[in-house]
Amino acid sequence: MPESEPYTVAWEAETGSIVYIDQTLLPGRYEVMRCTTTTDLARAIRRLEIRGAPALGIAGAMGVALAAVRSTATDLDRFQDEVRRAGDFLKSTRPTAVNLAWGIDRAIRKIAMAASVDEAKALAVAEANAVAEEDELTCRRLGGFGAELFADDCTVLTHCNAGALACRCWGTALGVIRSAVAAGKNVRVISCETRPLNQGSRLTCWELARDGIDVTLIPDSSAAYLMRKGKIDLVIVGADRITQDAVFNKIGTYMHAVAARHHGIPFYVAAPVSTFDLSRREAEITVEERGREELAWCGERKLAPDDVKVLNYAFDATPLDLVDAIVTEVGVLRPPYAASFRFIRTGEESRR
Amino acid sequence: MPESEPYTVAWEAETGSIVYIDQTLLPGRYEVMRCTTTTDLARAIRRLEIRGAPALGIAGAMGVALAAVRSTATDLDRFQDEVRRAGDFLKSTRPTAVNLAWGIDRAIRKIAMAASVDEAKALAVAEANAVAEEDELTCRRLGGFGAELFADDCTVLTHCNAGALACRCWGTALGVIRSAVAAGKNVRVISCETRPLNQGSRLTCWELARDGIDVTLIPDSSAAYLMRKGKIDLVIVGADRITQDAVFNKIGTYMHAVAARHHGIPFYVAAPVSTFDLSRREAEITVEERGREELAWCGERKLAPDDVKVLNYAFDATPLDLVDAIVTEVGVLRPPYAASFRFIRTGEESRR
Repeated sequence: MPESEPYTVAWEAETGSIVYIDQTLLPGRYEVMRCTTTTDLARAIRRLEIRGAPALGIAGAMGVALAAVRSTATDLDRFQDEVRRAGDFLKSTRPTAVNLAWGIDRAIRKIAMAASVDEAKALAVAEANAVAEEDELTCRRLGGFGAELFADDCTVLTHCNAGALACRCWGTALGVIRSAVAAGKNVRVISCETRPLNQGSRLTCWELARDGIDVTLIPDSSAAYLMRKGKIDLVIVGADRITQDAVFNKIGTYMHAVAARHHGIPFYVAAPVSTFDLSRREAEITVEERGREELAWCGERKLAPDDVKVLNYAFDATPLDLVDAIVTEVGVLRPPYAASFRFIRTGEESRR
Repeated sequence: MPESEPYTVAWEAETGSIVYIDQTLLPGRYEVMRCTTTTDLARAIRRLEIRGAPALGIAGAMGVALAAVRSTATDLDRFQDEVRRAGDFLKSTRPTAVNLAWGIDRAIRKIAMAASVDEAKALAVAEANAVAEEDELTCRRLGGFGAELFADDCTVLTHCNAGALACRCWGTALGVIRSAVAAGKNVRVISCETRPLNQGSRLTCWELARDGIDVTLIPDSSAAYLMRKGKIDLVIVGADRITQDAVFNKIGTYMHAVAARHHGIPFYVAAPVSTFDLSRREAEITVEERGREELAWCGERKLAPDDVKVLNYAFDATPLDLVDAIVTEVGVLRPPYAASFRFIRTGEESRR
């Protein structure tokens, strides 16, 4: 994405509000929108105008900043209570992506250190901006580590959008692809359309084509067949949450992991450490189920009869034994993951 | 489907034309259309208004009948030449489905026996009706054999539409489901939407809901995850062509076969013997590639940027070692398939 373009989500200091690219309008329309209240922001997150694990982390921290700067409370305790409630409300919008809660908690912890309401407001905004700036650094570091996994000439399959539009910029899985291209490698990307909301066709194809990266769109269901035909060298995807035993990511990720293992193709996950939730196991995580209309309709077009039941999981869980590497900003983790996870967990706890 | 409903595709004796349910309009609109020329029919097949392997076999034979009754030739040789050319033209509309060519060839062979143009016309119509009637018997026999593979209470995954709408009526894979339900078994169906043309959501959900069979719609990409969660007991799909070594069927079939094997779930194919092409191997078959607009647009809604490349295979090939049984009208075939294939091939050749 050209440096002159606005970030996916950003704090606008002059107005004390959040500006973001509305991802539901792409690729037809490119529009920058503004949230001035946490209610606005919750709606934008629920409607997936802002989506993608790292971008949700940034949006979460900025949501706390928004609640803080808009608060009229003068008493510090009352102010902190109000902002915490706003944080809890924002967390409820997407139950599976851990980064949202992570970003909210980071900004809330900062506010707890303040000696006055004004200081708390300034700290919340500073922390939100820090989360955003760190995200860019994280993606670029992670991209550099991941690029070394790519051969000089290769075709990589990706699912959903773990790109610039899922982060502040650059991306996680697509950040690795961008870093590999920047390092002079010849990379062709196969983008799965990613039903039912087509983040692959709408967002991944849009941002890669815009950057001049070779991309081909396929239906999700043809990935395994392309592997069988020898047309895919590796798979790389993002993550919404990584527990002790599994990677939660967009529905379809698990299918690609199974097919990749069947064909002996490496399956990689690219995710910042903020995606790790190592105190939990797969069975403890709620997988968000979304509405029937996402499958029964496409715009004005009716795709299914009115009375039919729909099962629409937004995410699935891939057990770690199908994951050949996890690319993070601290390096490339390899199985068995327990040792690296212990190290990361210790680091996380010490920062709290 | 209630007995009073029109067949998916049928010969209308009074007008000497083909009537069919336009499958591109479902589930929004149910409309019976008419073809009076082979050009009409070719367009209806290319646009997928008529689709499904057995239905294409019937349409092929009826296309020959249409060419025959509309011919103004009085000389028998010239008449037969003209009808054969019409048959070749119709065969070119869909390269992968073998039944289309099979139906056309059956009717053409019949015409070759005629002593006069009038006799040839009558033979063509009679053969087209015979193909249609046999298809119904075939589906009901096949359904009866296949139903024995189902437990008394089970959840079955299917892909695309191998149903009444893909045949004269009853169906192949869905015929097995109908036969199991008719035998008193408690069957729940999971229907994959089947991108990019959504034959699963539009057609399978429509015809099963209409028959009161329990059906739930999912995105194609979640099938493997539902297997992991123990929500699927078996998979059954149709076929467009079965060679010595592989089953050609709707794109996505192979992915389900790989996932089923990974989870130890039986993977079955239901197909009439007319689908077998046992003189060939997978590598000899052309897999139809369809246009970019099927993935880039959904009705009026733009799903992908204008400049992005699209790879849109209509079918994939599943090697026979992933297929646990092939359900036909002559019985349930089990691996290794070579012996049953030799028997079927001998029978086919002796009928010629």
